[in-house]
Amino acid sequence: MPRASDGDPTGLHRVLDEVRVLPQAAQCLDTRKELWPDEVRVRVEMLNLDAASFRQLERKHSHGGEIDPDALRAEVLDIVATRGKMQNPETGSGGMLVGTVEEVGPESSLDLSVGDRVATLVSLSLTPLVIEDGLAGWDAASERVPCEGYAVLFGRSIAARIPDDLAPELSLSVMDVCGAPALTARVVADLVDPTVVVIGGGGKSGSLSLAAARQAGAGRVIGVVPHQAEADLLTSAELCDEVVVADARDPIALRDAVAKAGGPGDVTVVCVDVPGCEGGAILATADGGTLIFFSMATSFSAAALGAEGLGADVTMIVGNGYVPGHAAYAVELLRTHQGVRSLFEGRL
Amino acid sequence: MPRASDGDPTGLHRVLDEVRVLPQAAQCLDTRKELWPDEVRVRVEMLNLDAASFRQLERKHSHGGEIDPDALRAEVLDIVATRGKMQNPETGSGGMLVGTVEEVGPESSLDLSVGDRVATLVSLSLTPLVIEDGLAGWDAASERVPCEGYAVLFGRSIAARIPDDLAPELSLSVMDVCGAPALTARVVADLVDPTVVVIGGGGKSGSLSLAAARQAGAGRVIGVVPHQAEADLLTSAELCDEVVVADARDPIALRDAVAKAGGPGDVTVVCVDVPGCEGGAILATADGGTLIFFSMATSFSAAALGAEGLGADVTMIVGNGYVPGHAAYAVELLRTHQGVRSLFEGRL
Repeated sequence: MPRASDGDPTGLHRVLDEVRVLPQAAQCLDTRKELWPDEVRVRVEMLNLDAASFRQLERKHSHGGEIDPDALRAEVLDIVATRGKMQNPETGSGGMLVGTVEEVGPESSLDLSVGDRVATLVSLSLTPLVIEDGLAGWDAASERVPCEGYAVLFGRSIAARIPDDLAPELSLSVMDVCGAPALTARVVADLVDPTVVVIGGGGKSGSLSLAAARQAGAGRVIGVVPHQAEADLLTSAELCDEVVVADARDPIALRDAVAKAGGPGDVTVVCVDVPGCEGGAILATADGGTLIFFSMATSFSAAALGAEGLGADVTMIVGNGYVPGHAAYAVELLRTHQGVRSLFEGRL
Repeated sequence: MPRASDGDPTGLHRVLDEVRVLPQAAQCLDTRKELWPDEVRVRVEMLNLDAASFRQLERKHSHGGEIDPDALRAEVLDIVATRGKMQNPETGSGGMLVGTVEEVGPESSLDLSVGDRVATLVSLSLTPLVIEDGLAGWDAASERVPCEGYAVLFGRSIAARIPDDLAPELSLSVMDVCGAPALTARVVADLVDPTVVVIGGGGKSGSLSLAAARQAGAGRVIGVVPHQAEADLLTSAELCDEVVVADARDPIALRDAVAKAGGPGDVTVVCVDVPGCEGGAILATADGGTLIFFSMATSFSAAALGAEGLGADVTMIVGNGYVPGHAAYAVELLRTHQGVRSLFEGRL
């Protein structure tokens, strides 16, 4: 049996690579069912693939506008079988899962009990995972993947019990993006009446971030969406002062549209999951402002060199998915903002 | 002749891609010699390739430990000819250049005159560039590339005059990394006696960041280097309280070594140009601390998901190469810190 002394709360003991790296950076994880003393095993019900990852897979396996579901399923199965975790090799991202605790190691500090229904708040890109049903129940048409199997949580992993009063799919959906509103609120609360621009304001992390920005004291809240249908939805959700339609990949169009709506942002939050939005986000942010990137499609060098190339004095933050209390805060925003709830329910 | 009304201070008018993106994100730039009214043309003397880019090219064109200089030169020439700029397709990064102003457009606001010797402070990854001498003077053994040709600066580009009292190669070397000390100083100055860890403290951006951290009020300054020879150099430069030898790619070794030296860091600055340092940097940073990534080898998703996966409440900042006054500040640090100057001169 694995011994405590071999283990590390980061999960290092499950890394099979020759070079000693953390599980997130590893090529391959040990998925043995037996637990180290501080681990927890979860019986999986559903995976929720990260949006950037799912879009990439969808693009790759579409031919003439038609998705090939068998090929998409086969690739996910192959990744998980090969790597022992669901980490998209292109985007580096994973997603999260919902399941039921089936065993708790004697030294676990995660405060979970057998039978608890939980969502993992650490990425699938570092979570040992075994799929046992060949994904037979997944139609490959959405990032929600019904799935039989098991996953392992480490000593330092984060998981949240699913609230009783919310449908599980709704909880999963909220917890998947719960780092965004918590970090947005933290940045906004440090400023006086800032103007906040949320690019991708109609999406999951975007709508929560809009609600968080207003609650944390934003003076003006601007939501940017890609087309009129989404603008109508966001307008009726009553989460922002201005709704703007612009293509976030067109930097000049984005800059000009945000300026017209009362921008630039003292705080700009990027919540869209397509590549190439760095330049526009920089131009939509005021001199001395802060830019938070939550999109997994963000390119580090495009952000760093883009700001330098524009002589833009903006503080750019990598959207850390973990902020203490983030899951409870996001669930609370959903409970107290009918507009957020409607947008989420409309996407299930 | 190009008209003012067609131009944009971001250089958008020189982007040849079908999709409207900024010059940094573009596949290909228009390198015509004729200037738009707010542009400046520089006669190039020397390129300084970004360290991450040069290492990648070096690795790619090495066989059995031997670099093939012809192949390396050919690839740089091919990139510049194809893209109209020097942007490494793998790392996305560029570098900078030194040259002499040869024409100033009538509407330029860069405050430059014909004959000024300047270093560009915007990346080569967005600077229209034409190489005219086939890089005949470059031995391909270092990132400093003697070069005949011309480059174009946009209305919003940044360039600095080269100080008279410093050798041009020394100025170039300092200005290449001048964003790092300025941003480090800004973050450190907001805290009370913070412990500052600089990973890659013996390098160019690293040694300047160490000096900046101390000058901005750090309580304890720890420099991390990869091996003993560099530790000896850094120790004799007298820039930090502790010098630590650790492999930054080994997260657990880095965490433990930094802890032993008085860490973790309230501020951690990553200045190494190898991939895979995100996890260790996160573990070397205190809860609630700030992590600044200056390495162009940083992976956005590895940073975001790594912190989430470790449940690490750290604020992660993308090292923006532009901070107002950065060039003058870095040159001043070099002038006033003999230790910094010695390290730089040792690397020329």
